[in-house]
Amino acid sequence: MESYTIDAGWLLTPSNKLISDARVITENKKIIYLGKKSNSPQLSRGSEYFVYPKGLILPPFVNGHTHLPETLIRGICDDQSLQVWLNDHIWKVEPVMNAVDAKIGALLGIAEMISNGIIAFNDQYFYADSIAEAVKETGVKAFLSPSIFEHEGQAESKTIPKSFQKNIDVFNRWHKYDDRIFIGFGPHATYSIEQEWLAKITEATKERNTKMHIHLNETKFEVAEAIKNRNCSPIALMDKLEALPVIMAAHCVHTDANDRKLLAKHQTIVLSCPQSNLKIAAGITPLPEYINQNIQVCLGTDGSASNNNLDMLEEVRLISLIHKGLNYDPTVMNIYEAYALATSSGANIFSKEIFSGALLENSPADIVVANLNSLATTPIIRPFSNFIYSAGNSQIVLTMSNGKLLYKDGKFLTINIENLKESAQRATEGMIDRSDYTINSDD
Amino acid sequence: MESYTIDAGWLLTPSNKLISDARVITENKKIIYLGKKSNSPQLSRGSEYFVYPKGLILPPFVNGHTHLPETLIRGICDDQSLQVWLNDHIWKVEPVMNAVDAKIGALLGIAEMISNGIIAFNDQYFYADSIAEAVKETGVKAFLSPSIFEHEGQAESKTIPKSFQKNIDVFNRWHKYDDRIFIGFGPHATYSIEQEWLAKITEATKERNTKMHIHLNETKFEVAEAIKNRNCSPIALMDKLEALPVIMAAHCVHTDANDRKLLAKHQTIVLSCPQSNLKIAAGITPLPEYINQNIQVCLGTDGSASNNNLDMLEEVRLISLIHKGLNYDPTVMNIYEAYALATSSGANIFSKEIFSGALLENSPADIVVANLNSLATTPIIRPFSNFIYSAGNSQIVLTMSNGKLLYKDGKFLTINIENLKESAQRATEGMIDRSDYTINSDD
Repeated sequence: MESYTIDAGWLLTPSNKLISDARVITENKKIIYLGKKSNSPQLSRGSEYFVYPKGLILPPFVNGHTHLPETLIRGICDDQSLQVWLNDHIWKVEPVMNAVDAKIGALLGIAEMISNGIIAFNDQYFYADSIAEAVKETGVKAFLSPSIFEHEGQAESKTIPKSFQKNIDVFNRWHKYDDRIFIGFGPHATYSIEQEWLAKITEATKERNTKMHIHLNETKFEVAEAIKNRNCSPIALMDKLEALPVIMAAHCVHTDANDRKLLAKHQTIVLSCPQSNLKIAAGITPLPEYINQNIQVCLGTDGSASNNNLDMLEEVRLISLIHKGLNYDPTVMNIYEAYALATSSGANIFSKEIFSGALLENSPADIVVANLNSLATTPIIRPFSNFIYSAGNSQIVLTMSNGKLLYKDGKFLTINIENLKESAQRATEGMIDRSDYTINSDD
Repeated sequence: MESYTIDAGWLLTPSNKLISDARVITENKKIIYLGKKSNSPQLSRGSEYFVYPKGLILPPFVNGHTHLPETLIRGICDDQSLQVWLNDHIWKVEPVMNAVDAKIGALLGIAEMISNGIIAFNDQYFYADSIAEAVKETGVKAFLSPSIFEHEGQAESKTIPKSFQKNIDVFNRWHKYDDRIFIGFGPHATYSIEQEWLAKITEATKERNTKMHIHLNETKFEVAEAIKNRNCSPIALMDKLEALPVIMAAHCVHTDANDRKLLAKHQTIVLSCPQSNLKIAAGITPLPEYINQNIQVCLGTDGSASNNNLDMLEEVRLISLIHKGLNYDPTVMNIYEAYALATSSGANIFSKEIFSGALLENSPADIVVANLNSLATTPIIRPFSNFIYSAGNSQIVLTMSNGKLLYKDGKFLTINIENLKESAQRATEGMIDRSDYTINSDD
């Protein structure tokens, strides 16, 4: 039996109340007690015991939209137009990535996420087998939708039919593995996939009772082109195909009243990536309006090519700040609202039984501890405010998934981290060597 | 003789080029060599030697606008209207702060800044003597402008005449201390100080050949009221008083064409606080336009009551991202432009000889090392991009001011940090005890 007892200064309940002098006890995969230390049952022998006097016990983050192996091309280009960024940089190197690289990139991303208190992610990328292997080994949870995309350079995804078949194969191999890996369908976007294929993929998704992960309404240009070419927005097109109820839609930055009505009606899961949308200059998604209109939103980082890190605390802090400024109203997007979009909203992707994003007895023991003993979080007046508005990601000191300890006090328990960092650097250098890309050594 | 030799993977030159396999050598207060390790002079005996194979040697950050002792009320209230925030929270506790508290709060803020690679700050607050003592002890550099503000509860600042006289006393005691402390005048704002007093303070500032630190054009409401009451904006009012050439103007979020023309003409130093402006819901300052119009801008965090940390890397990342999204243009506010506003622009406050915000031979040995060996900055393709877009503040591993080592690998060399954290918590609890403020223990 694997059991942990964690005592900490505070614990955040699902109703956003803090319990002080808190304790959580896990047994095997579940939380069996959470509450006041003083009310707890007697500790069972063999329960490993940790104490963080200034620790805040929290549910872990979910990362709602990733292209995980892109960690390997992190920072290859910034601050350029979309055309230059894609044609002269990203698409020169990314296509030479192979399955071995992809696994290294996925492991690197998972490790970074674990250290940032993220234990679940929702990915759309090539090489889903590699990513699934990385998930299997490291103990996190993932919803993986293999990219369906025609990309000449990408060996395993040369054509739509080929990548669609690959998607089905991945589904058959991995769906529901260990109740931690779930497979969906990953058509890239409505402008890159023909309508008949979108219909076919929708059918395949519904037949298998799973979800579809697609980019919709990301840029103004994309929406304008869709309206010009098809006389409806990408969201409205997917509605015509009756796909919205099974869709997880990345971005949805630019939506009109009809789009929003459709998203709310069908409870489409909007995967919003605030930093990436700013960096790529897609714009700013009106999240407070979406929430008011009862649209489901889950935050994500996007791939590391366009962010350039995997830090959900940064995303939560950003949306909490930016919508106050844009709306001239400091009461907009309070810390609990913002935090829910990166935690409990993950239940919409995975189901509440798999990932609740809240601390609950008899639920999976998914637990994070943030240590508020740092300078940036001193003094402690309101611990949760300190976490959201003041803490750095290095203050995450413990990460647990399904009762398995993944990370504690800077040490990874399921990953050989120094080896991984070296492998990642070598993989990136190998990809650059195999491509016709040259790095400007000045910067 | 105090001397350090630091070898690192890279070094950022003032022209934004990277030198790899870099070395910097300091002797006493100056940098005596920087460049390739292979070209360096022979090491003098007794030079302490540090090596960071994946380190990036950088100039330190400046923090352009602080109310430093506010660290003690960090997180006391968020997400409320300005009225509730001020009347029911901040102004219940802040007025009971005494000089001893203020020094503790200043030390706490300085420690946090040192650990974040910030060695210089520009403050406007009460208890300037306490802050100056903290600066003196810790080795950083500061421009301090004692708050001139009528505040019944604040013992040392009950009236404008009293706080003006106090400002002069502080100037006489501290100005140019050790070439690290500089004193300016700190009238709070045009709505809180009568015009004749603003004129008098302007005269006092010019007589002493120093600068004035004032809040101007922070909120829409402030500007609208000024135009209603005085028929000119706060910036235009200070122009009438011929004060703009000596002004460091915090915020300037809402400016019209005339305001901007005046700011550019008089090279007024705009102290922009992006996170604070969002959190307080003042709005978003159009920094790209300001830069295009040749307005001087220096970034700051603002006080910890409204931010809630002292992390200039966060501010740089935020402005680099947000203006791309707002302008639908990823080439806006590139990493070098954004970084300059938090480094070399500090020379406008302190003079280039005191704080250059750039690595230069024969200049003060103000040095920071960021270690890019973390997961978020792996792999390393473009080191400076990794620092700006990917790194966490915990990756700052070395901070030096005037050749004095202040911080290395998590250890503070001029501050007893564990004592300080305890004192800060006690000071805050003491202030809350002495006020009629009650904390909601739920959050």
